[in-house]
Amino acid sequence: MSKQKQSAPGTVQMPARRAFLKAGAAAGGAIAAGAVPGLASATGNPENQAPNVADWSHYLGDGVDAHPYGMPSEHEAHVVRRNVEWLTADTQSSINFTPLHELDGIITPNGLCFERHHGGAAEVDPADYQLMINGLVDKPMIFTMDDLKRFPRVNRIYFLECAANSGMEWRGAQLNGCQFTHGMVHCVMYTGVPLKYILEEAGLKTNAKWLMPEGGDAAGMNRSVPIEKALDDCMIAFKMNGEALRREQGYPARLVVPGWEGNMWVKWIRRIEVGDEPWHAREETSKYTDLLENGKARRFTWEMDCKSVITNPSPQAPLMVKGHNIISGLAWSGRGTVERVDVTLDGGKNWRTARIDGPVLPKALTRFYFEFEWNGEGLLLQSRAIDSTGYIQPTKDELRVARGTNSIYHNNGIQTWHVQASGEVENVEVS
Amino acid sequence: MSKQKQSAPGTVQMPARRAFLKAGAAAGGAIAAGAVPGLASATGNPENQAPNVADWSHYLGDGVDAHPYGMPSEHEAHVVRRNVEWLTADTQSSINFTPLHELDGIITPNGLCFERHHGGAAEVDPADYQLMINGLVDKPMIFTMDDLKRFPRVNRIYFLECAANSGMEWRGAQLNGCQFTHGMVHCVMYTGVPLKYILEEAGLKTNAKWLMPEGGDAAGMNRSVPIEKALDDCMIAFKMNGEALRREQGYPARLVVPGWEGNMWVKWIRRIEVGDEPWHAREETSKYTDLLENGKARRFTWEMDCKSVITNPSPQAPLMVKGHNIISGLAWSGRGTVERVDVTLDGGKNWRTARIDGPVLPKALTRFYFEFEWNGEGLLLQSRAIDSTGYIQPTKDELRVARGTNSIYHNNGIQTWHVQASGEVENVEVS
Repeated sequence: MSKQKQSAPGTVQMPARRAFLKAGAAAGGAIAAGAVPGLASATGNPENQAPNVADWSHYLGDGVDAHPYGMPSEHEAHVVRRNVEWLTADTQSSINFTPLHELDGIITPNGLCFERHHGGAAEVDPADYQLMINGLVDKPMIFTMDDLKRFPRVNRIYFLECAANSGMEWRGAQLNGCQFTHGMVHCVMYTGVPLKYILEEAGLKTNAKWLMPEGGDAAGMNRSVPIEKALDDCMIAFKMNGEALRREQGYPARLVVPGWEGNMWVKWIRRIEVGDEPWHAREETSKYTDLLENGKARRFTWEMDCKSVITNPSPQAPLMVKGHNIISGLAWSGRGTVERVDVTLDGGKNWRTARIDGPVLPKALTRFYFEFEWNGEGLLLQSRAIDSTGYIQPTKDELRVARGTNSIYHNNGIQTWHVQASGEVENVEVS
Repeated sequence: MSKQKQSAPGTVQMPARRAFLKAGAAAGGAIAAGAVPGLASATGNPENQAPNVADWSHYLGDGVDAHPYGMPSEHEAHVVRRNVEWLTADTQSSINFTPLHELDGIITPNGLCFERHHGGAAEVDPADYQLMINGLVDKPMIFTMDDLKRFPRVNRIYFLECAANSGMEWRGAQLNGCQFTHGMVHCVMYTGVPLKYILEEAGLKTNAKWLMPEGGDAAGMNRSVPIEKALDDCMIAFKMNGEALRREQGYPARLVVPGWEGNMWVKWIRRIEVGDEPWHAREETSKYTDLLENGKARRFTWEMDCKSVITNPSPQAPLMVKGHNIISGLAWSGRGTVERVDVTLDGGKNWRTARIDGPVLPKALTRFYFEFEWNGEGLLLQSRAIDSTGYIQPTKDELRVARGTNSIYHNNGIQTWHVQASGEVENVEVS
């Protein structure tokens, strides 16, 4: 089969009702029946197999004891998280990025969820793990992993986005691929305990207004979380996509703060202090605030604004052929569900509604597609998401007018990809 | 922190409203405020850290370049697919099993999805991959991977269950764990092309009634599929849980036949022949049929009947402590959604409704929980699922009355776990 190639470009003739590939120069190839003996049925025409049956049909493959825990095919070795060396002074307080252009659907496989550490990925032994609740509670308590697993559990699919996702684009860095411009987001199914159950177990005092979750890593990451959010939908999660949390995602337990910036989703969580005012921690004063033009700074900008990006085509995934093609992308909102996604091929002159497919869940990634015919002309591709609150994803220029250009965080501006006549794609800005 | 242990058993005193762990001998430990200096806030009480802060808080962890494709923590090394050596003559026509007792939620991570091969896992180069459509079509065609990715795509979460799942229990093998009794099932989000689009591209002739999908592995796995199913919800999938199919799951493309036995979900799919009658292939005559007591055999028993199993506790996951505990399990139906799951602690004398949590999707795994207090007495745990057609999961004895004991396939009988006073769990049958 490996020697069977499709028909030469231009030879495909299909009736009009076969709509999808009809305009493609390299579309699915028509063949004359019986002309490809190697592809004929091994069952129906056993005499007709050699010589064109693919190599992999000639030999037994790996047995079921070969890979107790499976890994991707070697042909997918390029599908990995990548970091940007010049971005940070070291790799332990740094970032790597999810390869969004290689993925589809709304679930991110655990091995490809981006990492953001402030002191490296702690290696915690779950047998020694403890979570302490102290401060304004009736009774300070310590819970082991076994304790946590005896609370009622829930399963929820949520996106997690770093507040700095797309941050380098504020001042037009124009990084070369959606992995780098938008890859600080992932989406998995979490299993864990609603935080309110744990807080109720310790008993909140009447003046309990804020929490300070604290990580067990060397950075001791901590953030102030208002009690209303904690009692609403926060979780202490211990599983992601069915299995134990990955080490780099806070194994054995992390805080889940749905829809809010990833920095608050404290990993390797060891303590939650309950107080009556915020802590003004490093990560909510000198970092994770947005310095405006007038010298004031936005702070406690927890919710991730509605956002979208076209993942294919994009600089790492060029258009390969003319004719029928599919634009694919992701949209999300920290405030609810994605209601609609619009796509433009001409830099915003004309917008058309994309097709959303797959589950549409609150505070989760949502997948959209837009099918179109490419005639080989240049395109300026953009997507624009609208969430269930009616909020419309803004342009980068609109964000700059509102917030100036000092910001790093919370850039949810519309991304533009320029598709060249060659099919190559570059990161550009349009006004 | 690693030196901080919870309070001794019996010292926990909690008000009644703190319901979850109150009855547990080893429940979450109450601590006197200020009594655990090592756990006090690194932020709030910096002078108070040593000596009890855990080792992992003292050192920087791995950087973001350490694991381009991430793997589970070394503490999870026991969470793997396992095969049973005596079950098959070799590992290339064999089975391994998903560790259901270690998982939660409804998504199975790709590395833990069970494998069933008839000629080993083929290693297919996607650059050379081709899918041929021939037989009763207007124009036989060949599609490359790039062609397939230009059809409209959909994203769907489906379970895949081998027809032989629980097969060894027909005659009471009583295997020692739900991994082995029920672990030939997994559930992922697939991304792929509805099969009807591909068939429409080639053009079905009016007498097209059956398909024969054929695998590219050494076994050339093939099965007859009625055209109604093919045009309903079958897909050619190329992604699972967001990333490319795993090699052992048919990389780069497999057939998805939602709700129907896994044997039909042809992996490494290389050809679909369209015909006007079934092929009566090996895998639907001598195999994957159910020999009844009267000498006749059930065949074309494609749909997977409604089924459930308690995954925790189970023989590989004993009860650890008295007091508050959680029963967790999975339910599914090849005919629709799971409507309800009942749980009994006493071998079927009394049934109570379990709490279903997480997405409830057609032809997908559904997660249920049942919280209870364990006083240390023996239990006979069972679960019983009811689907959207009103079908009620039967007992094993009811199945044997209807079908005798020659069967291997389609055992969806109620599973019983005997919890002993020690907390250990064994696989038993009750009449």
